[in-house]
Amino acid sequence: VPTARYIRGQTASVDATDRGLAYGDGLFETMALRAGGIRYFGYHLERLAEGCERLAIPFPDRGELEREIEAVAGGLERGTIKLILTRGPGIRGYAPPKTRAPTVVLFADPAAAPAPPELTVATLKMRLGENASLAGIKHLCRLEQVLGRLELSRLEADEGLMLSTSGMVIGGTSRNLFAVHGRALKTPDLGLAGIRGVMRRAVLEHAAEAGYAPEESRLTAADLGTADEIFMTNALVGIQSVSRLDARRLVKFEAAERMRAMLDLGEGA
Amino acid sequence: VPTARYIRGQTASVDATDRGLAYGDGLFETMALRAGGIRYFGYHLERLAEGCERLAIPFPDRGELEREIEAVAGGLERGTIKLILTRGPGIRGYAPPKTRAPTVVLFADPAAAPAPPELTVATLKMRLGENASLAGIKHLCRLEQVLGRLELSRLEADEGLMLSTSGMVIGGTSRNLFAVHGRALKTPDLGLAGIRGVMRRAVLEHAAEAGYAPEESRLTAADLGTADEIFMTNALVGIQSVSRLDARRLVKFEAAERMRAMLDLGEGA
Repeated sequence: VPTARYIRGQTASVDATDRGLAYGDGLFETMALRAGGIRYFGYHLERLAEGCERLAIPFPDRGELEREIEAVAGGLERGTIKLILTRGPGIRGYAPPKTRAPTVVLFADPAAAPAPPELTVATLKMRLGENASLAGIKHLCRLEQVLGRLELSRLEADEGLMLSTSGMVIGGTSRNLFAVHGRALKTPDLGLAGIRGVMRRAVLEHAAEAGYAPEESRLTAADLGTADEIFMTNALVGIQSVSRLDARRLVKFEAAERMRAMLDLGEGA
Repeated sequence: VPTARYIRGQTASVDATDRGLAYGDGLFETMALRAGGIRYFGYHLERLAEGCERLAIPFPDRGELEREIEAVAGGLERGTIKLILTRGPGIRGYAPPKTRAPTVVLFADPAAAPAPPELTVATLKMRLGENASLAGIKHLCRLEQVLGRLELSRLEADEGLMLSTSGMVIGGTSRNLFAVHGRALKTPDLGLAGIRGVMRRAVLEHAAEAGYAPEESRLTAADLGTADEIFMTNALVGIQSVSRLDARRLVKFEAAERMRAMLDLGEGA
């Protein structure tokens, strides 16, 4: 049985020996609460389960987890739910303890992230390391994104574009990216870096219905330079058009608008 | 003023919103307490300071930190002190908060790590990602080492050899590595991956006095195959000879013995 801690205004704490703190040894999900339910809850749970399998952390009982999330949401209609799942407390040393006692931390926030329909984006110097063993899942080791965000705070842009160390486009600091070339809807392959976002998955699965050919591919900065349109996605803010990438202004927002309508994301995501 | 939490037997906790837990947004040091003092304390503080500078986390007041460490050690003669320094509590999102309020967690353990003079080592499949922005410092994002250690638990060896994704030798899961070729004492360059260990630094600085020519260089598995001798280092266990690397037995321990004597590490590190 996982330890759950509920937060909403009040503070809560975790054991100082928790391996999530010691080594980033865990996973997280940040979920949009809409009309009292979690949007794409099944996708969030599936990504969490894949992360658990990759890290050999036992997946919590789904029914219990759902009850805990309901309890922390506490009748909220709209807001944000964040879940952290770690390998649990541990003694010193990288070796995972024999006894499996994962920690679950849940946060509920009645504020939904602001989601303007357009974003300006600047390419960051900070790169993302490549490692197939950790790519795709939403683990807790996020210093690259933190440093990317720190760099962004000194620039005039809403989001930062992050490349991997070998120069592949991966996405924003907290968003996935799509580039439209005609009817092709390309998003970076995340086999070596990046997080497979829940909204990214929804777009990939519904692109064909909206008349686009979705494709996961290796994209470079040059591929973005020839794109008709670029948009970014995130579970909380939905789909946002890129109106500027570095010095280039982008004026086509059609694919983003179609996908937003297709996924019924509505105003303000 | 940092928040310090002392642990010795009793439990302690950190705020569940701490960015160390959320994103691995912090640093740590694990230090050997010997004869009531911390071995290479100055080196530990210098590495911590470099990490703080790289991550833009304010370095704590040194005098205060020393008093806190003395308080947590509480008259222990021998043992292990672990320090975690994070960017502190935060709201949701990768962007570091404007208000700087780092968290300091201190652990004291009267047990010193066991340090047999010889180790068997197996090369791991798990690789280390390469990123110059994070290499060298002892930050909290350590999932690669955790997964390496998990792989090691299924093998018959004391330590795992980790290569970077491009195939360079980096070191053990929790140890640095030295390879002896004649009088050349080579250790992997850690500009792209790995942690610059405190004991590694001591060996590099004192190698010449012991008659060796120290060198940081790019080492491959083939370079280890032609080494006369290999040893590993760690702040807690000191210097340990590698007696087997995969199928190869190693029988020369002279450089390790000389360096151990030179650094006055004594019995059991």
